[in-house]
Amino acid sequence: MNKESSNIRIIDIAEMAGVSVGTVDRVIHNRGRVSEENEKKVKAILEKANYQPNLMARSLASKKQYHFIAITPSFEPGEYWEAISEGIDKAASETELYNINVTKLFFDQYDNSTFDVIVRNLFDKEEIDGVLIATLFTDSVSRLSRMLDIRNIPYVYVDSNIAGEHQLAYFGTESFDAGFIAAKLLTSQIGNQPDILISRIIHNGKNDSNQGRNRKEGFLQYLNENGFGGKLHEVELKIADSEYNFAKLDKIFYDNPRIEGAVIFNSTCYILGNYLKERELKNIKLVGYDLIDKNTELLSEGVITALIAQRPEQQGYNGIKSLCNHLVLKQNPEKVNLMPIDILIKENLKYYLNNKL
Amino acid sequence: MNKESSNIRIIDIAEMAGVSVGTVDRVIHNRGRVSEENEKKVKAILEKANYQPNLMARSLASKKQYHFIAITPSFEPGEYWEAISEGIDKAASETELYNINVTKLFFDQYDNSTFDVIVRNLFDKEEIDGVLIATLFTDSVSRLSRMLDIRNIPYVYVDSNIAGEHQLAYFGTESFDAGFIAAKLLTSQIGNQPDILISRIIHNGKNDSNQGRNRKEGFLQYLNENGFGGKLHEVELKIADSEYNFAKLDKIFYDNPRIEGAVIFNSTCYILGNYLKERELKNIKLVGYDLIDKNTELLSEGVITALIAQRPEQQGYNGIKSLCNHLVLKQNPEKVNLMPIDILIKENLKYYLNNKL
Repeated sequence: MNKESSNIRIIDIAEMAGVSVGTVDRVIHNRGRVSEENEKKVKAILEKANYQPNLMARSLASKKQYHFIAITPSFEPGEYWEAISEGIDKAASETELYNINVTKLFFDQYDNSTFDVIVRNLFDKEEIDGVLIATLFTDSVSRLSRMLDIRNIPYVYVDSNIAGEHQLAYFGTESFDAGFIAAKLLTSQIGNQPDILISRIIHNGKNDSNQGRNRKEGFLQYLNENGFGGKLHEVELKIADSEYNFAKLDKIFYDNPRIEGAVIFNSTCYILGNYLKERELKNIKLVGYDLIDKNTELLSEGVITALIAQRPEQQGYNGIKSLCNHLVLKQNPEKVNLMPIDILIKENLKYYLNNKL
Repeated sequence: MNKESSNIRIIDIAEMAGVSVGTVDRVIHNRGRVSEENEKKVKAILEKANYQPNLMARSLASKKQYHFIAITPSFEPGEYWEAISEGIDKAASETELYNINVTKLFFDQYDNSTFDVIVRNLFDKEEIDGVLIATLFTDSVSRLSRMLDIRNIPYVYVDSNIAGEHQLAYFGTESFDAGFIAAKLLTSQIGNQPDILISRIIHNGKNDSNQGRNRKEGFLQYLNENGFGGKLHEVELKIADSEYNFAKLDKIFYDNPRIEGAVIFNSTCYILGNYLKERELKNIKLVGYDLIDKNTELLSEGVITALIAQRPEQQGYNGIKSLCNHLVLKQNPEKVNLMPIDILIKENLKYYLNNKL
């Protein structure tokens, strides 16, 4: 469907045909009296313009209200989840006119129980017509998915996919491959012999993030397939305690002088980057994820070697739009929509940032 | 501007307000008699919908015809310039309704004189309102640009930029940086000591492609800045004579066993790739440009190490759209529009191809 031409307005058709808008209206709805000549002129233009009834506007006229819920992690300005949230906002503002309302609910990405609290209270209040879910906590998301299945409420996943559920659609990357690629980028810098440090952020609750786990599996798989001969070391850091982190990292780098590479499977690569910069450990190559400001600065400075990005704005935007298209236009999306896995280095970063959604 | 809401049609507004289309028309044009109540209802909806007069459609009604010329290299199916041409076609089909007509003229990218022939005959026939130019041959493009300046005809560049001209806009990559990045990718694989083979395709005429020259400069600059200690070898290949090419390459690889890396600064990386595959030279790392089918196959197979892409469809599409917006909507584009420099390896290729324009 040619988008622009199908959006042509009755007033434009009237001008082109040299008839009144009332005449065009009568031809479109096949009612009232129109001269044969005028009918012919109008129909020719309708055909040329690929005119189609506007379903969106029809639904608007129907006064049906839709209420969507988006459940994603909370964020400080500049953090990763801000980008997903911006995509959601953009889609929400575009669909607002069609009586779609989006409520955003936030949980703490380092505390599984905060997600469960949202789920527990979800069905208490208003009617819900669709849900967007950031799938960090696999078990909790599966539980929520079954509750939505029972109620016949469509839901979409963003961030990482979960198999065996009935999501309307998934928008995100193949996390395993994103981990595989990180290992390739890192070992292309340090070779196969040095040790690698894997960092993670300490969580509350038993669950590690679904995406982080899949990325790590992909990372290990690459090393395994490609004859990696170094040792892997793991360190747990705190999201907001740099004194604690520096002490931990000082010790592990002192104890393991063969570490030449480092990776972290969420967007907090800057925590390690700031340490490396402060300690002037220029021989350590660091690979991470996501173009949040704190990361892109360190990439520009050469402290971070490479970042892998996954178009988060588009995930949030496409997620909400697909719920809207499903409910209003009766169009079903592809079930799995894999975003590009973009590779950013110091030299192509600025061009990428210039061309965001 | 919110695109969807500004495209709302008079018929939709009428339905929402519960009035006739004639009433909406009278309110919009502030003519004829409308009850105060209806005027209020219609105006409230116009405001909510961010209604704006449709300049595109106005121009259509004005019956003014626009004729654009796109001058790009000819291509076989699957070759690089097909993608630019597809972008041009997409923009042409979207703007056709507004009386814009695009004529595509093709030259031989390996023969400067074929471009000059097009220029010589360009102003013989119809009126021209705008020109899109693929800037392969710098001197010839500069000459054409001055001819267009005199005639006050706007023109846009795609592929690579030329400084000091009066182009309305440029859509493409920073070729120098795309070369710089190729060197970084290649030396991250082979290190700083082995020799590198630089291939080029033999041209007719004095001019090497503008883009190829800029990429090569960037490539050499990176090696220079990063202590490259190997030797550079150059080889000239023919676009369609694999017997000739194989003989040339056999000799140069035999004579120079220290060559471990290879690069070519246009889209014909597959010529070298096919040779490496046939001769089973698995230790040679090859970096090239552009996601044409022959290249992506070899990337998937691991024969090519990395490809750099620059969204050619979007260059062609944006080029034509910007001429249209300039002439019809009186909107001026940014003068320099740098596309992302995308890095593709075997592992992220398929996700990228899934998400094209």
